Amino acid sequence: MDNYQKVSEETHKRVQSNPYGPNPSDYLSNVRSFQLIESTLREGEQFANAFFSTEKKIEIAKALDDFGVDYIELTSPVASEQSRSDCEAICKLGLKAKILTHIRCHMDDARVAVETGVDGVDVVIGTSQFLRQYSHGKDMSYITKSAVEVIEFVKSKGIEIRFSSEDSFRSDIVDLLNIYKTVDKIGVNRVGIADTVGCANPRQVYELVKTLKSVVSCDIECHFHNDTGCAIANAYTALEAGAKLIDVSVLGIGERNGITPLGGLMARMIAADREYVMSKYKLHKLRDIENLVADAVQVNIPFNNPITGFCAFTHKAGIHAKAILANPSTYEILNPSDFGLSRYIHFANRLTGWNAIKSRVEQLNLNLSDDQIKEVTTKIKKLGDVRPLNIDDVDSIIKDFHADISTPMFAANEGPGPVVDEEDVLLSNIKRPKLN
Amino acid sequence: MDNYQKVSEETHKRVQSNPYGPNPSDYLSNVRSFQLIESTLREGEQFANAFFSTEKKIEIAKALDDFGVDYIELTSPVASEQSRSDCEAICKLGLKAKILTHIRCHMDDARVAVETGVDGVDVVIGTSQFLRQYSHGKDMSYITKSAVEVIEFVKSKGIEIRFSSEDSFRSDIVDLLNIYKTVDKIGVNRVGIADTVGCANPRQVYELVKTLKSVVSCDIECHFHNDTGCAIANAYTALEAGAKLIDVSVLGIGERNGITPLGGLMARMIAADREYVMSKYKLHKLRDIENLVADAVQVNIPFNNPITGFCAFTHKAGIHAKAILANPSTYEILNPSDFGLSRYIHFANRLTGWNAIKSRVEQLNLNLSDDQIKEVTTKIKKLGDVRPLNIDDVDSIIKDFHADISTPMFAANEGPGPVVDEEDVLLSNIKRPKLN
Repeated sequence: MDNYQKVSEETHKRVQSNPYGPNPSDYLSNVRSFQLIESTLREGEQFANAFFSTEKKIEIAKALDDFGVDYIELTSPVASEQSRSDCEAICKLGLKAKILTHIRCHMDDARVAVETGVDGVDVVIGTSQFLRQYSHGKDMSYITKSAVEVIEFVKSKGIEIRFSSEDSFRSDIVDLLNIYKTVDKIGVNRVGIADTVGCANPRQVYELVKTLKSVVSCDIECHFHNDTGCAIANAYTALEAGAKLIDVSVLGIGERNGITPLGGLMARMIAADREYVMSKYKLHKLRDIENLVADAVQVNIPFNNPITGFCAFTHKAGIHAKAILANPSTYEILNPSDFGLSRYIHFANRLTGWNAIKSRVEQLNLNLSDDQIKEVTTKIKKLGDVRPLNIDDVDSIIKDFHADISTPMFAANEGPGPVVDEEDVLLSNIKRPKLN
Repeated sequence: MDNYQKVSEETHKRVQSNPYGPNPSDYLSNVRSFQLIESTLREGEQFANAFFSTEKKIEIAKALDDFGVDYIELTSPVASEQSRSDCEAICKLGLKAKILTHIRCHMDDARVAVETGVDGVDVVIGTSQFLRQYSHGKDMSYITKSAVEVIEFVKSKGIEIRFSSEDSFRSDIVDLLNIYKTVDKIGVNRVGIADTVGCANPRQVYELVKTLKSVVSCDIECHFHNDTGCAIANAYTALEAGAKLIDVSVLGIGERNGITPLGGLMARMIAADREYVMSKYKLHKLRDIENLVADAVQVNIPFNNPITGFCAFTHKAGIHAKAILANPSTYEILNPSDFGLSRYIHFANRLTGWNAIKSRVEQLNLNLSDDQIKEVTTKIKKLGDVRPLNIDDVDSIIKDFHADISTPMFAANEGPGPVVDEEDVLLSNIKRPKLN
């Protein structure tokens, strides 16, 4: 154990300065000052299973507002009559979050949007060759002209306006920078980059955002689809490069397999700057919000969901369990109690180790020496080779073993021990010792 | 439509050279030559729900081999008696994939491992201050001494050897480079970087791998946990920086919420280099393998899983549907038919547009003008405001409308049209036109 003292001063500093947090050389970084545009009621409505009644929309909007999101984005009022009246109803709730609606870059849509009572309008138009050819069929000069008209109109109404390209990563960089520069000059509040097809990778994101940051003075918002599984990482990298706002939805619901999920981004950001995230967002409400939306769109929380997946804080292998029992930070970058959740040491399996079993023996208030615990661990691993074990199985083995030692003559007649509730083994109260 | 011709030559070149593929300036990149170390039977066995019988392990190993993975990694033979005999059994199958087992950096484990018949041994030891203090309690000179002993022993048996640090991103960079340089010199086949707690972000990964690449001449393998949702992006970025091998598991199963998933990484890689991926891996077997493992560990495929999630190729919003009908590449970076899957245009909802309804009208073999289709689209959106719609609802509205026009006198007496099977609207045969 003397070796603990040999850790260099430098290592101490690295640990203390949170090396997996924002890169100190990134003077552009907004990792410590980001904002959320929550789009469950817009992008999320484009999810295959989504049909939100007015009541459900209001319930979701209130829950998101309570959680602390900065903006709530709603479906275009032009999409349907009910979409318009729902938008008006949510604007009247008096939420702390600013209410946005998301429209095509067209005066017909803008005229309706500004009458709904929203705090801001997000306009979008496809700029990639694919979308210009197969979606709206317009060229860049037409797009620019429309954008300027819509932006000046919305600004004249005294509300926020964002201009975003669509499919930005398949758009010509010169086209993009030209139009962003133009709309920035006429006073747009934000420009948006959208990875509409989910093709972007983190280094591309970093380069595009950094370049755009040198061209515009307004804020940059980013929207990442998750087709290739990079939506959270791309969002983080965009913030590093100077983007300020990230579009999210609960569980990431949206077109196809969706966008950056609220919960997953919270996991990423809390690893980078726990203090900022904790001060701004009510993380212990995350599970309830995810359940609310999952129920509304009839899906299950994915088993491997960040934070709230059923096994996100379950430790199984022997060496993991041993270290977690000594200090949870060894194998946890997130603290489950930040989210109102508990960790669980899975000891009823063939990969278990004697440290995990020792902890269980202590919970059962039994008295065994380390050598005895190693012996009973061997028995447990042997049964774990034959079939899946539950906690009762392990407890029975431990108690039988203990009985054998204490009163060997009666042991053979003893039944299994009392059933122990799983709650007993939730080890949420393990202290996180500081490194010395 | 004339505007299509105005697209600059440069844009053409960018589209044709696959701008979302490997960065041409990355001479280090292995994006086009990566290999997979499939760890469902090692890391995956550490998943909370996993209990694999011998038969199930063999079934999974054969399926992975057929899929084309380069290596299959198995639980340490020291973990339990059955683990050892299962390892031996899988080595005897004569698979194309090389078989590895994963052990602690200790001669006791190494002696058992080399007798199982494996093609290679992966050794790992914790190098972060956290793990040195709370797990094994050893200092770097002890770690280096053990590593050299184990490596030389395994090499003397004529099988592959990998040395990996554990919790690499919380380890001292000087310690890491020192030990990697030492083991590289004595002829280790691979060195491994492991983000054991899932804290790393892509730019950190890029920097560490690139630095390591300048220090060692052997291959670099990477292992990323997914606690903060970056495991796929980190893997991709590691390949860009010169890593050669990525650890994956089916559905990402592993400790806590797991590691880089096989399917998700395939989605990422096929977007970068479709030809390489298609030539090496049987992607149309992906769904079966995921179902096999999901059943074995009793989880559902996450609704938002890349590629195989139920909605991964479902398009809903009107403008998306319109463009997809014209050219699927507009909103799809992945081609569902590469995976033996189909796309689906979701038109039975209030966000639908008249282009999607027009396509449905044509499928029903009815004859309506564009104006008539716009009129019936309005009716559909109105009903979609009131309640969730299914395909039968939409078909009824269309047919009633059509009947009203054709034989107005009898329309009121007509019942709903015949039930149409969902299969009819799977639009997998839409052609992908090339950009002109």
